[in-house]
Amino acid sequence: KRPREYGIITGVMQPGRQNSITDVAGVKVGHTTIIKGDSVRTGVTAIVPHSGSIFQQKVPAAVYVGNGFGKLAGITQVNELGNIETPVVLTNTLSVPTAMNAVIGYTLREKGNENVGSVNALVGETNDGYLNDIRGRHVTEEDVLKAIRNADTSRPAEGNAGAGTGTVCFGFKGGIGTASRKLPASLGGYTVGVLVQSNFGGALQIDGVPVGQSLGKFDFSNHLLNNVDGSCMMIIATDAPLDHRNLLRLAKRAMLGLGKTGGIASNGSGDYVVAFSTAETLRIPHNSNSPVMTITLLQNDALSPLFMATIEATEEAIINSLFAAEPMKGRNGREVEALPLDKVLPILKKHNSIP
Amino acid sequence: KRPREYGIITGVMQPGRQNSITDVAGVKVGHTTIIKGDSVRTGVTAIVPHSGSIFQQKVPAAVYVGNGFGKLAGITQVNELGNIETPVVLTNTLSVPTAMNAVIGYTLREKGNENVGSVNALVGETNDGYLNDIRGRHVTEEDVLKAIRNADTSRPAEGNAGAGTGTVCFGFKGGIGTASRKLPASLGGYTVGVLVQSNFGGALQIDGVPVGQSLGKFDFSNHLLNNVDGSCMMIIATDAPLDHRNLLRLAKRAMLGLGKTGGIASNGSGDYVVAFSTAETLRIPHNSNSPVMTITLLQNDALSPLFMATIEATEEAIINSLFAAEPMKGRNGREVEALPLDKVLPILKKHNSIP
Amino acid sequence: KRPREYGIITGVMQPGRQNSITDVAGVKVGHTTIIKGDSVRTGVTAIVPHSGSIFQQKVPAAVYVGNGFGKLAGITQVNELGNIETPVVLTNTLSVPTAMNAVIGYTLREKGNENVGSVNALVGETNDGYLNDIRGRHVTEEDVLKAIRNADTSRPAEGNAGAGTGTVCFGFKGGIGTASRKLPASLGGYTVGVLVQSNFGGALQIDGVPVGQSLGKFDFSNHLLNNVDGSCMMIIATDAPLDHRNLLRLAKRAMLGLGKTGGIASNGSGDYVVAFSTAETLRIPHNSNSPVMTITLLQNDALSPLFMATIEATEEAIINSLFAAEPMKGRNGREVEALPLDKVLPILKKHNSIP
Amino acid sequence: KRPREYGIITGVMQPGRQNSITDVAGVKVGHTTIIKGDSVRTGVTAIVPHSGSIFQQKVPAAVYVGNGFGKLAGITQVNELGNIETPVVLTNTLSVPTAMNAVIGYTLREKGNENVGSVNALVGETNDGYLNDIRGRHVTEEDVLKAIRNADTSRPAEGNAGAGTGTVCFGFKGGIGTASRKLPASLGGYTVGVLVQSNFGGALQIDGVPVGQSLGKFDFSNHLLNNVDGSCMMIIATDAPLDHRNLLRLAKRAMLGLGKTGGIASNGSGDYVVAFSTAETLRIPHNSNSPVMTITLLQNDALSPLFMATIEATEEAIINSLFAAEPMKGRNGREVEALPLDKVLPILKKHNSIP
Repeated sequence: KRPREYGIITGVMQPGRQNSITDVAGVKVGHTTIIKGDSVRTGVTAIVPHSGSIFQQKVPAAVYVGNGFGKLAGITQVNELGNIETPVVLTNTLSVPTAMNAVIGYTLREKGNENVGSVNALVGETNDGYLNDIRGRHVTEEDVLKAIRNADTSRPAEGNAGAGTGTVCFGFKGGIGTASRKLPASLGGYTVGVLVQSNFGGALQIDGVPVGQSLGKFDFSNHLLNNVDGSCMMIIATDAPLDHRNLLRLAKRAMLGLGKTGGIASNGSGDYVVAFSTAETLRIPHNSNSPVMTITLLQNDALSPLFMATIEATEEAIINSLFAAEPMKGRNGREVEALPLDKVLPILKKHNSIP
Repeated sequence: KRPREYGIITGVMQPGRQNSITDVAGVKVGHTTIIKGDSVRTGVTAIVPHSGSIFQQKVPAAVYVGNGFGKLAGITQVNELGNIETPVVLTNTLSVPTAMNAVIGYTLREKGNENVGSVNALVGETNDGYLNDIRGRHVTEEDVLKAIRNADTSRPAEGNAGAGTGTVCFGFKGGIGTASRKLPASLGGYTVGVLVQSNFGGALQIDGVPVGQSLGKFDFSNHLLNNVDGSCMMIIATDAPLDHRNLLRLAKRAMLGLGKTGGIASNGSGDYVVAFSTAETLRIPHNSNSPVMTITLLQNDALSPLFMATIEATEEAIINSLFAAEPMKGRNGREVEALPLDKVLPILKKHNSIP
Repeated sequence: KRPREYGIITGVMQPGRQNSITDVAGVKVGHTTIIKGDSVRTGVTAIVPHSGSIFQQKVPAAVYVGNGFGKLAGITQVNELGNIETPVVLTNTLSVPTAMNAVIGYTLREKGNENVGSVNALVGETNDGYLNDIRGRHVTEEDVLKAIRNADTSRPAEGNAGAGTGTVCFGFKGGIGTASRKLPASLGGYTVGVLVQSNFGGALQIDGVPVGQSLGKFDFSNHLLNNVDGSCMMIIATDAPLDHRNLLRLAKRAMLGLGKTGGIASNGSGDYVVAFSTAETLRIPHNSNSPVMTITLLQNDALSPLFMATIEATEEAIINSLFAAEPMKGRNGREVEALPLDKVLPILKKHNSIP
Repeated sequence: KRPREYGIITGVMQPGRQNSITDVAGVKVGHTTIIKGDSVRTGVTAIVPHSGSIFQQKVPAAVYVGNGFGKLAGITQVNELGNIETPVVLTNTLSVPTAMNAVIGYTLREKGNENVGSVNALVGETNDGYLNDIRGRHVTEEDVLKAIRNADTSRPAEGNAGAGTGTVCFGFKGGIGTASRKLPASLGGYTVGVLVQSNFGGALQIDGVPVGQSLGKFDFSNHLLNNVDGSCMMIIATDAPLDHRNLLRLAKRAMLGLGKTGGIASNGSGDYVVAFSTAETLRIPHNSNSPVMTITLLQNDALSPLFMATIEATEEAIINSLFAAEPMKGRNGREVEALPLDKVLPILKKHNSIP
């Protein structure tokens, strides 16, 4: 069950139909989950902005660096040109190059790209090396292609799926989480969807309740002496017609959502936010007959509700990842427990977060 | 009474002795509160990094832009050279130039600065125009100088004081707030102090409790239809030996503290964070006999506890500003109520935040 | 005579009709030149993007920091919101606040702005303290208003005019310079105009000819032991329909033009570039009935000729400032010679730059 | 022969002993040149900051984005943590992931790195697809490792070597170039070395002489209608004790050197500058017993001569690449001519650049 089914309501805005990044029309997500033997616990998650060729029909985008201890590839071109031209792929830290190779190959082989000689693969990661034999670099290009091919518009699996297979969050099993917000029609009716790969530390709060503290499990306490570092990849999709500048602003707000779960963006974190707009009229053709392009954009003044939506959906996506994740054994016999709902729900009840 | 006296404990770390930015040794704060007639509700707050000449003994510093709809002056030189050379002054939006003129004059007149022809005044602001006749530009240079002269190392007045005299936060009277954290000796024993000028909106949370929502008072609800915009100035002082790069990282974390109070960094916000280190060995002499300087810096790996301290102290400073602020009548007969403790404390109790 | 009249042709593109920033339709420039007694040598230059209310009809803009040892005010709001809402004003370092106050007052008093309580004054500066009694802060608000009021669409005076009255460049008298480029119709026919306030050092090159070296006058030579620092303000106007992101890219190119004159953006430089687009359809109304706006923008692919135009016009504007400037005596009996054309022209001839 | 041997003297400062990046003590460079059949014209160049383990003894560094249409990997971690932890590798656009994989493998296998699970590979590129079958991705991990292994402290081969094998610059054959400057002892005696992979367009200037124009070969002329885009990777090494902030400032200056050759940083350019300091006392140990580190840094005031050195050495390195490159036939029977010295030298002579 997802947190909302327990009565945990994050924020004041309404989620979309699936409470998922796929509530943004056309956005597809696919996972490849890789679990082999005792120590391979990793995977790939692909977020595909629309159903056409992303390279031929680029989407406006921005990447924000919350904390840059990470290996995300593709940032400078996205921020220079203001768009992304490939699916967004998430995986583990040391498999970024393999994922890039897969994305490049995928793009070169796409119909219409026969003469393309430059591809900006956008690949993010977190480090699943606590549970996963990350040094073994077990992700293959085929794993990446499978995630892209498998992508569909249904709500993606959360928790130990795809790039979240081996991640750890607040000392519990983390993973993939997703959520969305739909603005009321009076504010434009736009949808903001978020998908996270949660793999970080801090002092866990759920719906504002100091769960980590109540459990005696938080960073810099005596109870959690292992590495506090980690990372969080956050992908924001919206159908609101935003250009690069305003998508970057949207992306910055995701960090506030991370903060509300108790994350601190520690020194060792690779906290990155990718934001893109699926607004069809904003698609940037790879080749154009015209030097100019006419577009309709949301004005600055209309941004604030989208900021709030981003913050809420990011917070909820992270909490969703924790609720969905199941215990995992991995490398060196290590075991990471799931969020102990038997203890957590009473804490939430005690704090009147749930009935 | 401050929130802690009601039993509201923000975060997991210990505050410093005064729970104030002035817990960072040597840091001084001074206010000039300007209340005149029916419609002048403004002021000046000066934060002075140390007792010597700031110009002659500059301190390492950084300024982070959370959202740049604001008029903070001095940012580019701070971030280029990595230091600040004047007291940090806060006031209202349209009085920034007057404050700059005062700071420049103050610096030019300082002993030893007889030949100085360049001064980078660091002046921040928020817009108190809801209560204050901001167009009247009622702050004088003497008001600014008084704030600097009056600065001392005691805990500064909070709420309707200095630059917080006319500000509004989450629909209630906001103002100046301060808080601090002291790391345990095992983590270096450093202190992080924060001072805020709170003037922004969102959906208020106190200690994670959705107070704004419980009161039916939050942005984009039917209950708060006035301008959601606003701003927050955040000043971070620390005695940890950090250079510009790591102070910038510290500054970025303050936004997570703002987020935890329910702030969303709305489109119209001027959310800026100034961070500086008071570590004595890091002082940058205005003139030096040597082209090199030997310094001792904290390594990247030791930053995470300072990040957490910054987040916690920022959150608490904002809440402190709300608890300290008293109701205020101002321009056009407008009235802003104080945080209604009679309603808020029961809500906190219901959520088990306080006993 | 301007350099072109001597046969000095910078670059490969054609200048506009006046070879001036005012070739961009609607752009107006005004100067207030302040020369008093022995030691007041300063002034104000205002660049007004169009003839209407800039506040009510903002223009897309960006500010790039080449080197941030300077006091330019207004940068963060320009880059956050992507527009400017006041005339751009240049003056001396210590008079920035006075100029801001003037611009704020000007805007508050404009018809239609009766309820405006927030103004982002965009004011740049260089330090004319070698010739000018900068500590005396002799610029008044009226001086600034006069520059705005006097602004017209004719080619502005160059050299010792306005904000260039007291500046020094490559050890010679610098000042205001302007130039423009007009793209051929096949590349869109757009105009790029540049205005500079030149006040920096390095090793002067004119049309690529090492004039500074030939004269034995360049930084770090034995011949120029005084302060190598200085600054350059560069203002770029274009009628090409560019948004903030692409204006920022344009702005970055101006530094390459500065480099081609032998500038090095020294440690003590405040090198800032302001770029704005006058395209009428891109005007951003201060208040709008609609949350969206439909605009026509140039695509990324069409930018390169504008980049080249910016580089060429910046280089030429700087050289123009040197040719126009006349010798100036100032503070402490100091005297700065003009570029010695009697020596320079033969050098250029020797290098076949001119016939 | 290098340009200096023809009497072409760039700038006013003295080169180091070899006029090479390897004049910075300890810096090593290695090439793998890959020429196969009719259409494989590519390679790898590795720049190794010192002889120890770069991962265990990281060096302070910064990466500046001149224009971000490129795929350089590793930037965010370098700029967040202020250091680089692998050799810097250059190759072609589509082989970046392969090079990253090689660098990761190299680092994982290094003695002492047995437990390392995170490696930030710093890999840059330009697009050699005009001459090279770039879609074939012919670079292997072994090619990359060979370049690292082969690296030594001698002056590296210039022109069609390593990552410069297939590049084109100003319409002529480009490639690898290197140069250096040594400050006089009175300014610290530091060395700045630059290595470039030249692959860009504009209007070529050599020693300020408008060679491109004289040859009728420049962008936007009728003579060069093919793609004006391209890229330039610039690597700056110095023994001056600079931290991240000042290395970033140094890196920015390289763009001025590029500008002086006539480059315009076109829309399609990936112009990146990596700067690092080899100062031994600034090495950052991967694991440290102490949370603090004592270092000696150059002060801001001492930077300007290093800025000038960077500009000059970058300009000269680019020109060196053109002089060294030989004609190359490649993909689809295309042929790129070398800089035609028979025409160029007379032009330089006519402009009195050479005797």
